[in-house]
Amino acid sequence: MFSERLAEAQQSVERRLGQWLDDAATPARITDAMRHAVLGGGKRIRPFLVLESARLFAADADAALDVAAALECIHCYSLVHDDLPAMDNDRLRRGKPTVWAAYDEWTAILAGDALLTLAFEIIAGSNSTMSPAKRVALTLALARDSGRVGMVGGQCIDLEADKLGMPKNPTLAHIRHLQALKTGALIRFGCVAGAILGDAKPLEHTALVTYGDRLGFAFQIADDLLDVTGDEATVGKAVAKDAAAGKATLVSLMGIEAARTKLAAVEAEAVAALDVFGQRAATLIEAAAFVSNRSS
Amino acid sequence: MFSERLAEAQQSVERRLGQWLDDAATPARITDAMRHAVLGGGKRIRPFLVLESARLFAADADAALDVAAALECIHCYSLVHDDLPAMDNDRLRRGKPTVWAAYDEWTAILAGDALLTLAFEIIAGSNSTMSPAKRVALTLALARDSGRVGMVGGQCIDLEADKLGMPKNPTLAHIRHLQALKTGALIRFGCVAGAILGDAKPLEHTALVTYGDRLGFAFQIADDLLDVTGDEATVGKAVAKDAAAGKATLVSLMGIEAARTKLAAVEAEAVAALDVFGQRAATLIEAAAFVSNRSS
Repeated sequence: MFSERLAEAQQSVERRLGQWLDDAATPARITDAMRHAVLGGGKRIRPFLVLESARLFAADADAALDVAAALECIHCYSLVHDDLPAMDNDRLRRGKPTVWAAYDEWTAILAGDALLTLAFEIIAGSNSTMSPAKRVALTLALARDSGRVGMVGGQCIDLEADKLGMPKNPTLAHIRHLQALKTGALIRFGCVAGAILGDAKPLEHTALVTYGDRLGFAFQIADDLLDVTGDEATVGKAVAKDAAAGKATLVSLMGIEAARTKLAAVEAEAVAALDVFGQRAATLIEAAAFVSNRSS
Repeated sequence: MFSERLAEAQQSVERRLGQWLDDAATPARITDAMRHAVLGGGKRIRPFLVLESARLFAADADAALDVAAALECIHCYSLVHDDLPAMDNDRLRRGKPTVWAAYDEWTAILAGDALLTLAFEIIAGSNSTMSPAKRVALTLALARDSGRVGMVGGQCIDLEADKLGMPKNPTLAHIRHLQALKTGALIRFGCVAGAILGDAKPLEHTALVTYGDRLGFAFQIADDLLDVTGDEATVGKAVAKDAAAGKATLVSLMGIEAARTKLAAVEAEAVAALDVFGQRAATLIEAAAFVSNRSS
């Protein structure tokens, strides 16, 4: 069930992103770089969460697909900017050249800016039946989860560690905070988006916030474990980067076994949060297992 | 009248931006870099246009101030990214170090991303009485005018000329298109924002689109003239950069005298567009003169 749903989501999100990126008024170089950044790759786990959380409420699937596309634009822009020489200096992403390596730095900066902006254009401009109030709620949540108190904030804390060695001895709480912003916030947004689209009751909304928060944590523990235990061909990007850089991660601070135990506990918490939805949440339960046990 | 109104706008926008930038949950380095980019400088001509166009309709001044702050966030983010070494490589802006020169490149990239995102947070999260429908209309207009078919698109065309020498012999129409996107779109948005906030009638909306379009054109001709005829101390940034770089501009293609004649004609068109508002538009008429005759 889960793998069919994920494959379906990948296809429909790819198609919708392609439609949004097909814009004759945009300079060709920007369109090409945006397409390079967005199309033809990625697990699409964040947009999948939007589609599945919206499905819990039988919310308008067309609206959910636009919100899913918007979220993926934010995720992809963040990769384009993160890969820049001044940031992580990565030349390879999903087995192909990063945008700055394929084009140049200025094109990557602008394509990232354009994708970030397009996310908000999509939510405001979606042809779906989304009410203005829902568009505003989604815009606000996405802006906060992707901006200074969300992803960008987490990226800053991460680079302060990498580039400036701050703080000197990061605690587990510091790492956890960093990751909750850097990767957690967008994953949580994917789950909360469904609650907004579906007019969730407060209890259901809270359940999706908790699920999203736990899922983001599980995602990050699994990521840190993969950096230590995965092999580059399967993972699709360089591994052992953190260890080589002497970077503090959940795994370096906790040890591999404790991290695995924690991951199982966090996955269980994610699943428990879905109780309120009963059988309807079967696919999201499988998603928690997928995120926790992934090998890439 | 005009200079008092502009000074008032500068103060109230500065204060409102300061409030939005005061966020305890944001990492200090990001907040500091955002404040460096946004506060304590700039003519604030774009936010001024929001406030004055909203005033034509006696629209909620508090809502207009938030939209003005959002627009200035976009303008300032664009300067932060433009100044980067990979783009224009400028170390000085408004007489102080640019963000990347004061901090470093990664901080400038992230601070720009955060400001761009904050613009949409402000419109969606404003505590004012703005209806959801107006927020959505403003979000869509701002996303388009600042993104791939607006400012970012223009920036791409400009850098294709600077970095790649494309096209080889730019025509006046090419330069005009570039500038309409790069600087024109945000100036026009400032004027259109008032029409959206004020529930303008179609005729009034069209009048403000025309006024904003002509004003943006006038702004750019004046800018190109200043690059040739201004002195660095008054203008507050490097001059003769375009000529030194052999860059095609309106002035290099038309000549100084023809550019001055064109500027006067465009200013007159901007003023004529305001006829529909009668005496209410006195300050916007003065704004057109200010933009056309400015010495900095």
